[in-house]
Amino acid sequence: MTDLDADDPLAHLRDHFVGTDSDLVYLDGNSLGRPLRVTGERLRAFVEQEWGGRLIRGWDESWFLMPEVVGDEIGRVCLGAAPGQTVVGDSTTVLLYKAMRAAVALRPGRTEIVVDRDNFPTDRYVADGVARECGLTLRWIDVDTSAGVTAELLAEAVGEQTALVVLSHVAYRSAWLADVPALTQLAHDAGAVVLWDLSHSVGSVPMALDAWDVDLAVGCTYKYLNGGPGAPAFVYVAERLLDEVTQPVQGWMGATDPFLMGPTYAPAGGVRRMLSGTPPVVGMLGLQDMLALIDEVGMDAVRAKSVALTEHAIATSADLLPDTTLASPRDAERRGGHVTINHPLMREATAELWRRDVIPDYRDPHGLRLGLSPLSTSFAEVTRGLETVREVLDGLTP
Amino acid sequence: MTDLDADDPLAHLRDHFVGTDSDLVYLDGNSLGRPLRVTGERLRAFVEQEWGGRLIRGWDESWFLMPEVVGDEIGRVCLGAAPGQTVVGDSTTVLLYKAMRAAVALRPGRTEIVVDRDNFPTDRYVADGVARECGLTLRWIDVDTSAGVTAELLAEAVGEQTALVVLSHVAYRSAWLADVPALTQLAHDAGAVVLWDLSHSVGSVPMALDAWDVDLAVGCTYKYLNGGPGAPAFVYVAERLLDEVTQPVQGWMGATDPFLMGPTYAPAGGVRRMLSGTPPVVGMLGLQDMLALIDEVGMDAVRAKSVALTEHAIATSADLLPDTTLASPRDAERRGGHVTINHPLMREATAELWRRDVIPDYRDPHGLRLGLSPLSTSFAEVTRGLETVREVLDGLTP
Repeated sequence: MTDLDADDPLAHLRDHFVGTDSDLVYLDGNSLGRPLRVTGERLRAFVEQEWGGRLIRGWDESWFLMPEVVGDEIGRVCLGAAPGQTVVGDSTTVLLYKAMRAAVALRPGRTEIVVDRDNFPTDRYVADGVARECGLTLRWIDVDTSAGVTAELLAEAVGEQTALVVLSHVAYRSAWLADVPALTQLAHDAGAVVLWDLSHSVGSVPMALDAWDVDLAVGCTYKYLNGGPGAPAFVYVAERLLDEVTQPVQGWMGATDPFLMGPTYAPAGGVRRMLSGTPPVVGMLGLQDMLALIDEVGMDAVRAKSVALTEHAIATSADLLPDTTLASPRDAERRGGHVTINHPLMREATAELWRRDVIPDYRDPHGLRLGLSPLSTSFAEVTRGLETVREVLDGLTP
Repeated sequence: MTDLDADDPLAHLRDHFVGTDSDLVYLDGNSLGRPLRVTGERLRAFVEQEWGGRLIRGWDESWFLMPEVVGDEIGRVCLGAAPGQTVVGDSTTVLLYKAMRAAVALRPGRTEIVVDRDNFPTDRYVADGVARECGLTLRWIDVDTSAGVTAELLAEAVGEQTALVVLSHVAYRSAWLADVPALTQLAHDAGAVVLWDLSHSVGSVPMALDAWDVDLAVGCTYKYLNGGPGAPAFVYVAERLLDEVTQPVQGWMGATDPFLMGPTYAPAGGVRRMLSGTPPVVGMLGLQDMLALIDEVGMDAVRAKSVALTEHAIATSADLLPDTTLASPRDAERRGGHVTINHPLMREATAELWRRDVIPDYRDPHGLRLGLSPLSTSFAEVTRGLETVREVLDGLTP
């Protein structure tokens, strides 16, 4: 352990995660978080006791309400959202689709969806599809891939033609941390609805969706919420919109009384109307362990550790890797939980790093993305990772 | 064990399932199948070894292809479908939505979706939503709730205005087993696309989707495929349609090269284009155990046991419950894997049966639905369940 680990009040939590006793340097917890040690046993016990023991009775006893119960927990622990506005279900992509369709339906007659060119591919692809099928056009915001969407850039793009603005809280490449309340206010001033993608921030950056007057948000649970590969996403709908919001995938779980199985669809009251099919119960188990741990620590402490880790990565890179450039904001207040450093040989370097059991991610153009999951990453791990980057780059540039 | 169990060549397989050594009489395996005993440990091991050990590398090593690999297995073992036409992902409802949108887009200019009034609620609700947003109208087939859609009924409904016909292979209430090749041919003669919902048949009734010239099909994996509560569904698209089929939820996992993360969406070649978001890997684990078991036995043997179980339920009901009426086809060739018996007091009876650890399901109007999952249900269990129904009905009708 370096001194930083000795001084870290959360250092002991690293032991709660599977595999942290190995030599692997894992710098991709923002793509797929490590499982907690309790999670494997939780899943086994669920199969044998709840699924196997309660069988169909489990639906009435607890599973039926899980989308809301787990959604409210995410809201309370991570989002700054009062109960009744968040549900879990479907993939991030499907929820983005439903939320974008909902937003566009809230602004009939408006003709544009605003999205930035550096938004995550799925956000852009879904927006493109929704625009096409609803007869709208996309207005692109051009952003520097090492930064993100500023108020100035957004102000140029929105106007009375804007139905929807689609933005990411933390940019997946640069880690640019958007100013959610300011950008939301700007879009509202133009009469537009805003959809925030929280995938790269939830569980790492504290938020206050209710206080920030957010309309709609969608987030992923397998990154900083450690829900496991392909764990279901969540959607937040502000209470003030719950009565008017509609979405096109009309399924039995989003209907008023699913077990009435009536002749016609009537959307459920509240945020359940964002649901469609049977809730992915098994997929919702893992993330509950991480929510409990974050709740114990508090999001402010998580963020403090996250900032310390990214500061350490930036300082160590400046020291060991002067031939790289920082592609993330230098100001911690504008930076999420990861750091991207650029070098022309980073694609090749990433392949070699993986061979040496150092696991960052690579993102075009030539970015090494260091995802520093706050509770499972140590400062020593970051140092060791960057020392290996130095060795690998030296080997590639003789 | 009754003689029927002694004579059952598959009787020993019941021991492979969690909870079959208890006194519970479980007659709802068509709503939620029992877990296999190996499944709990499979999930625990996955968390600790694959997710926890391989971390993000798991995507390249195997998870990325799981939707196709598991889809092809379902196709081979259960559907009579050659590889490359089936993928797993999303809920049944979301896949029904995508498949209906795909079908409607294949028949521009046509104005109607044909669906039967007794189809499962989600099928009807999704069809209603798709019709509304695409400017089509629904044409309803009226069916007897104790039967299903016949060729005569379908012939009256389809015509040159029909874009899409939505049908269930096995009706969720009556267990009516539709004649898939005949009805498909009828719809094709009218120039329509047919979407088959296989939720209540897959894993219990053998099928030959390729030979039957089926266009599109969607099915559920938590019923007879024992995937666990909310396990993801699958979609089948006939090879001849793969180049033209499109769906509106444009996500990164359905794009040509997900990790290229390019500026614009281009659908993947093949059936992957039906995918949208990150595959629900944890949710796909359980069903693989059941697929392996069905593969070992073969769908014909599964069906033989299923028919024997439903025949036994009908004969025992006729014997013990002459005051009930059969709401399922008497002819085994027209019947799926469950049996519904009606009595005016069945709603009250079901509540009392649950209190006595006999777990069937109730479906309006006054139907007791006995779901007889072929490999986990014994003949003695059916007898004991129906004896309890007799006692309960006697208690309710003094």
